[in-house]
Amino acid sequence: MKKDLIDIRDLSLAEIDELIGVAEDIIDNPSQYSDKCKGRKIATLFYEPSTRTRFSFESAMLDLGGSVIGFSSPTDCSVAKGESVADTARTAECFADIIAMRHYKDGAAFVAASNVNIPVINAGDGGHNHPTQTLTDLLTIHREKGTFDNLTIGLCGDLKYGRTVHSLIAAMSRYSNVKFILISPEELKIPENIKTEILEKNEIDFAETDSLEAVMPELDVLYMTRIQRERFRDPTVYARLEGIYILDNEKLNTAKSDLIVMHPLPRVNEIAVEVDDDPRAAYFRQVKNGKFIRMALILKLLELNEQERVNGNFSKPSKLGAESFDPSIIRCDNARCISSIEQGLEHLFVKTDNGYRCLYCETKAHKSF
Amino acid sequence: MKKDLIDIRDLSLAEIDELIGVAEDIIDNPSQYSDKCKGRKIATLFYEPSTRTRFSFESAMLDLGGSVIGFSSPTDCSVAKGESVADTARTAECFADIIAMRHYKDGAAFVAASNVNIPVINAGDGGHNHPTQTLTDLLTIHREKGTFDNLTIGLCGDLKYGRTVHSLIAAMSRYSNVKFILISPEELKIPENIKTEILEKNEIDFAETDSLEAVMPELDVLYMTRIQRERFRDPTVYARLEGIYILDNEKLNTAKSDLIVMHPLPRVNEIAVEVDDDPRAAYFRQVKNGKFIRMALILKLLELNEQERVNGNFSKPSKLGAESFDPSIIRCDNARCISSIEQGLEHLFVKTDNGYRCLYCETKAHKSF
Amino acid sequence: MKKDLIDIRDLSLAEIDELIGVAEDIIDNPSQYSDKCKGRKIATLFYEPSTRTRFSFESAMLDLGGSVIGFSSPTDCSVAKGESVADTARTAECFADIIAMRHYKDGAAFVAASNVNIPVINAGDGGHNHPTQTLTDLLTIHREKGTFDNLTIGLCGDLKYGRTVHSLIAAMSRYSNVKFILISPEELKIPENIKTEILEKNEIDFAETDSLEAVMPELDVLYMTRIQRERFRDPTVYARLEGIYILDNEKLNTAKSDLIVMHPLPRVNEIAVEVDDDPRAAYFRQVKNGKFIRMALILKLLELNEQERVNGNFSKPSKLGAESFDPSIIRCDNARCISSIEQGLEHLFVKTDNGYRCLYCETKAHKSF
Repeated sequence: MKKDLIDIRDLSLAEIDELIGVAEDIIDNPSQYSDKCKGRKIATLFYEPSTRTRFSFESAMLDLGGSVIGFSSPTDCSVAKGESVADTARTAECFADIIAMRHYKDGAAFVAASNVNIPVINAGDGGHNHPTQTLTDLLTIHREKGTFDNLTIGLCGDLKYGRTVHSLIAAMSRYSNVKFILISPEELKIPENIKTEILEKNEIDFAETDSLEAVMPELDVLYMTRIQRERFRDPTVYARLEGIYILDNEKLNTAKSDLIVMHPLPRVNEIAVEVDDDPRAAYFRQVKNGKFIRMALILKLLELNEQERVNGNFSKPSKLGAESFDPSIIRCDNARCISSIEQGLEHLFVKTDNGYRCLYCETKAHKSF
Repeated sequence: MKKDLIDIRDLSLAEIDELIGVAEDIIDNPSQYSDKCKGRKIATLFYEPSTRTRFSFESAMLDLGGSVIGFSSPTDCSVAKGESVADTARTAECFADIIAMRHYKDGAAFVAASNVNIPVINAGDGGHNHPTQTLTDLLTIHREKGTFDNLTIGLCGDLKYGRTVHSLIAAMSRYSNVKFILISPEELKIPENIKTEILEKNEIDFAETDSLEAVMPELDVLYMTRIQRERFRDPTVYARLEGIYILDNEKLNTAKSDLIVMHPLPRVNEIAVEVDDDPRAAYFRQVKNGKFIRMALILKLLELNEQERVNGNFSKPSKLGAESFDPSIIRCDNARCISSIEQGLEHLFVKTDNGYRCLYCETKAHKSF
Repeated sequence: MKKDLIDIRDLSLAEIDELIGVAEDIIDNPSQYSDKCKGRKIATLFYEPSTRTRFSFESAMLDLGGSVIGFSSPTDCSVAKGESVADTARTAECFADIIAMRHYKDGAAFVAASNVNIPVINAGDGGHNHPTQTLTDLLTIHREKGTFDNLTIGLCGDLKYGRTVHSLIAAMSRYSNVKFILISPEELKIPENIKTEILEKNEIDFAETDSLEAVMPELDVLYMTRIQRERFRDPTVYARLEGIYILDNEKLNTAKSDLIVMHPLPRVNEIAVEVDDDPRAAYFRQVKNGKFIRMALILKLLELNEQERVNGNFSKPSKLGAESFDPSIIRCDNARCISSIEQGLEHLFVKTDNGYRCLYCETKAHKSF
């Protein structure tokens, strides 16, 4: 295990199981953990606001007996002065023992982790990764269902852009006899590469549908997501679709009695408020689990980092196989990539079957020649 | 007593006396309280900035040995993503033991309290309620004068819109032999319903005047408020009035030697800075009292909530007698009401002598038919 | 020593040495200080964002076992409501034991300190003073070089506007056999008064040059600063100069092996990222030293303030020799001076050889007659 958590794929199944085990022990014996991080500090570097995620990290550290420094939006930090992510991370390293970073650019947490010797947790980098959300989802499934195996998991809504959905599919695909039902409008279907590279490659059972009602009775887990108006060019299409994927008590009538309904939150209206009182509504229990898994993660990473400090050898995000190119030869065209704004960043690319991808945001790189 | 404090009228005289008693004990024996909330967290959800009130809640919790999570303005929370007050409160409940909420909409704290099983303290909801300010004012009067009875209280400035003035009148009206002198320009006189429903109904002695100087010698307490330029259509009227209600050393010459001058702060210029050095200026002592009464309140509400948790039966804001109507029949027209923006909120109304009032903001509802 | 630190010149050499001694003891024995401020609170009043300085003060207090209240930008405090700096400071005094204030106006911390009985630390007031940066610089030089004497110090970049450079010259001029090399473009040369009133007056050896490369081999300390594009009327001049003062590995080739490179940060591009790996790059160690010297300072000021509290006699910023004038006679024309916005502030001036200077911002006052 590395000192950082940038991408859920950094963790092996055994490591995930260990984190979930620690989180469940914390839930059972909170007082045994209440001083574990006495004298330690987390720096919550939130370049965009995210109340839930920030509260989750901060209360995780507080419940471990540690304390918090941080900022919660770009208006109250030095971004305006043009400081790089690398320098802000190095500065935080001077004061804190661990960093949780949220940034609007893909790859920002990778850049931070590459520049410091303390653990960096990616608390969401643009539309790219959000590994602690996936850990939260996994802990929730484990606590609610008692197992990861033999589950039929419905994923509903925006399956095209929803990064938490993609990560959850990748993570759950590693367990036995899991079936996915992918429920979305045509416009928001799961990307082809998720189907070919994860589902089909691993021979996972899955089905696609545009009807939530048709598949409801089969589901053990229903993972709802928000359909964002901005995703649609044609507002009449949005208006037509909006209601179909709103979960209400009536649609739940045909569901199993031990179904669990999950949602990464915030919701707008895709789950009616009336559903909150249904015992199958697990989304606020899910929020609570977020704190416990982050407590386990903070503990584990600090422990690893302590060992590294003794060894004098710090694990950093892997640049294995990465090559540096001049922008006149190969460049990343993703405007949301950290490489589009970070001062002094080496532009690195990894060779793939059909070209190169940017090391930071993982999008296909453009050949300039 | 309920687990929440939304409106000062939720508290009986005995409950107020108990809180004041605890606050005064905290002042005398601070070290006995410094670990009372160890391991507990307050969530300060401030949808609009209010440095003084936020500092007061946060240092109250810190001085009880607890800790703080929160946000201090809409720019650093998830409001921009359209999350409802109910969902934000439910999220905070996952991480904290008690919530202090400040919101720009009337009724927001009521909505929060209705949705969670932990205590919610209203730290100001629009122009509606601000009960901890009133508790602060009461503790200040009690500490400074030694009693609530037999006092002549001058209220000066904007008596029309000043919610703290209305609450203080309601609270003090319950004590013996209190006299109010209402000092304001014609344009900012106390509303009729305060006179009829509180003062006259309870046979309280009161007088109205537009001259601060004329009544100064009689006063035991002078409660100053800010006159806001925005309240006046005609700027020349504002300009004429502005100076009349500015308290300076000269105006204090005729006052009793044991008068106390109070102000909810911030002031702009309605109390000259020179007055600060006068021992009768109590407004910064008042700020300090705000912390102590909030410490008492946090302790009391957490204790009540603990009992409720044992019983499994949580007190929620009363919806007694509230009826739900379709907006096409009865609706709340108050643009500052939380019901104008909150997703999924049931629109509830309470029958009054001459119609209905909105459950959330208490303004008269409009009949659509 | 006074209870406040507003200007580095408030400290004698002996007091600076004492602070550095305590900071070095904290570095050696951190656990002996981890409870020194238990139950104490710092208020970080940051009217403009400064992540590094704020983090430094906050983690200093946390590492002393205390806690923090504060705001980090004008959007989350009561500035919008027009509250004066004096009133905000008095409010903070009701809740905290010590204040660190950052403000965009010159003289703001002086005004705060004049109005409260708890220590105020100036964390930067406009372009005026930033004494804890200078203390940080001094601790860094002492730790890295083992002495303050017999050093050749290169100061490079914007020597005209850089307040940290001016303060460092003033502070280092008090030690033995220090030589300054002032490296800047013509447009950004050190102000005349620094040369005459500090360097020449104290018979300090110094030289001026526009070539960093020419003097590199002589230097024991190289203090880099940012050249701000906004300082140049002619962008082609900026473009020409920009590169000349960028420090990279090549320019370091001729430097002493025990040179130290310092920078107050944030940097934009004036030090190439490649330099970070050179052991002579001391600027992130400098950031870390910032926390330790602030711990020493907080401890010292709280101790002094405790004694004052016993005596009932609080030291306040000196208004010695200050006279009050009506703006029609003498006024401060500095738009960045706190006196241009602060309500109810007495306009005070100090007589100089050739007129008056504003007490708050120290700029030459304008005679209206």
